[in-house]
Amino acid sequence: MQVFSVAGLPDFQPGMDLSQAIIEALAAQNTELMAGDILVIAHKVVSKTEGAVIDIEQVTPSDEAIQLAAEVNKDPRKVEVILRQSSRIIRSMKRPEQEEGTIIAEHKLGFICANAAVDESNADHVGQLITLPDDPDASAMNVCNALEKHFGCQLGVVVSDTFGRPWRLGQTNVAVGLARVPAITKLDGSDAWGRELKVTAPAFADELAAASGLLMSKDGKCPVIIFRGLAWQASESKAQDILRSKREDLFR
Amino acid sequence: MQVFSVAGLPDFQPGMDLSQAIIEALAAQNTELMAGDILVIAHKVVSKTEGAVIDIEQVTPSDEAIQLAAEVNKDPRKVEVILRQSSRIIRSMKRPEQEEGTIIAEHKLGFICANAAVDESNADHVGQLITLPDDPDASAMNVCNALEKHFGCQLGVVVSDTFGRPWRLGQTNVAVGLARVPAITKLDGSDAWGRELKVTAPAFADELAAASGLLMSKDGKCPVIIFRGLAWQASESKAQDILRSKREDLFR
Repeated sequence: MQVFSVAGLPDFQPGMDLSQAIIEALAAQNTELMAGDILVIAHKVVSKTEGAVIDIEQVTPSDEAIQLAAEVNKDPRKVEVILRQSSRIIRSMKRPEQEEGTIIAEHKLGFICANAAVDESNADHVGQLITLPDDPDASAMNVCNALEKHFGCQLGVVVSDTFGRPWRLGQTNVAVGLARVPAITKLDGSDAWGRELKVTAPAFADELAAASGLLMSKDGKCPVIIFRGLAWQASESKAQDILRSKREDLFR
Repeated sequence: MQVFSVAGLPDFQPGMDLSQAIIEALAAQNTELMAGDILVIAHKVVSKTEGAVIDIEQVTPSDEAIQLAAEVNKDPRKVEVILRQSSRIIRSMKRPEQEEGTIIAEHKLGFICANAAVDESNADHVGQLITLPDDPDASAMNVCNALEKHFGCQLGVVVSDTFGRPWRLGQTNVAVGLARVPAITKLDGSDAWGRELKVTAPAFADELAAASGLLMSKDGKCPVIIFRGLAWQASESKAQDILRSKREDLFR
C-alpha cells in the first residue's frame, strides 16, 4: 500500500470547486488517480467550500447556551452553535484546572464527539466556526463522481474529522462521510484456523481515516490523502452505518 | 509512506523467537529494514511466543465468575480469566437477541476494552485463550532491540490489539505496547493560520495501529506490518501514556 498527500492545495473558501482543485494539484505533481485509489479528505475543506462556516459575531445565544457556556467556560455563541448542531448533550464538565471545559454531544447526524464537531481551528479568522457538512456522504459522492469522471476509473472517497476517544488520549481521524468505501469489512467468519469469528468486523473506513492522520498534518496543509494498492469492494455504505445504535450503546 | 506486510511468518508457539522469525521472513522477501521503519505487530503473536495463553480446561471459575457468566451467557472459565486480567468490570450486559453478552473491563494494565482483551480467535485450538503480554512495552522493546541489532539502524515497534469503540461499530487496532514510537504527537500549538490549537494531539501510535489493520487481515496470516517513510522522532513513550486518567474520564 502506498499513501501520499496531495500537495499545493489552495486555502479553500466558500464556493470554490474542491474536486477541480484536487485535479489541478494532482496534475501539478504529475499524478493520475488509478482504479481503486481511495481519497481521505479532511471535512474542513469540504465544509469551507460548501459554506458550512459560521461567523460567531452573527450568533445570538439562547438561554440554554448561556447556561451551558457558564458551566464549561466557553463562548456562549460557540455553545449556541454546538447546540444547534446537536441532537443531545451527552456530557459536559469543567475540571478546576481546565480553562475551558468539555462538551460531548451527539451531532444531529448521529456522531458522538466533542463540541458536536464545531471547530475554530483552521478557520480563516478568529471567530469563524466550521461545522460538519450538511450531508457528508453526499459531499464525498460529489467529489468521487467528479474525480471518477476526470480520471475514468472507479475511486473511493472518505470525508474525515478528528475525534477524541473516551478512554484514550490524543485524537484520531474517523470517517464522517463515505462514497463507495465500505464502512465495515465483513470478514468471512473464520480465523486462520477456521474457527468462527463472531464479532470481528474491521472498521475499514475508520482505519483509512486514522491512517490519513499520519500524513494529514493538523496544520491544514495536507487535507487530502490518497491510498493506493488496497484490495476493497465498492459498497453503498453511508457513514451512519458506522454508528452504534442507541439501543446497543452502553455509554451514551 | 509505504506500508507492507511481512509474508510467510510461521504459526507461532510458546518459546519461538519472534524477532528471528521476522528477520528470516524479511530475508525471504529480500527486504532489509531501514532507519525510521516502524513495525506494528499483532499482540497475538507476541502473546503466543511469550506463552501468554491459557488452556480453558485448566481454569476453575470463582463464584464471581460463575455469576457474571450466567448474566452474559459466557463460559464461566473464560469469565474467570477475564476477571483475573481485569482491575474492574466497567459494563456487562446481554440483550435478549444476543447469544453472548458483552463485558467491558478495565485491564490491569489500564486498557478499557471488551473481555479485558482475552481472546479465543486465532488460538491454536478450541479452549485456548490468549491474553495480553504481561508487559507489552517490554515485548515491543525486545523485538525492537533485536531488529535494530540485526539491521544496524533505529526502528520503532508498536504492539497492537483490536478494540471496539463505544459509539462506533466495527473494530480498529490500537497500540498496547510501544518501543521508541511516540504515543501522542505534540503539535507546535498553531494551525495553518497561526491560531493556537489547544487540544490537538494526534494519537500517533494508535494511527499506526489502525492503519496496520488495512493490511493485517484478521485471518492471522499478516501479523506484522511495516511503515516506511514517516517523519517521526524516537521517544520514551509507554502505551500507558495513551490512557486517559480516571480523573479525566467522563465514561468509566
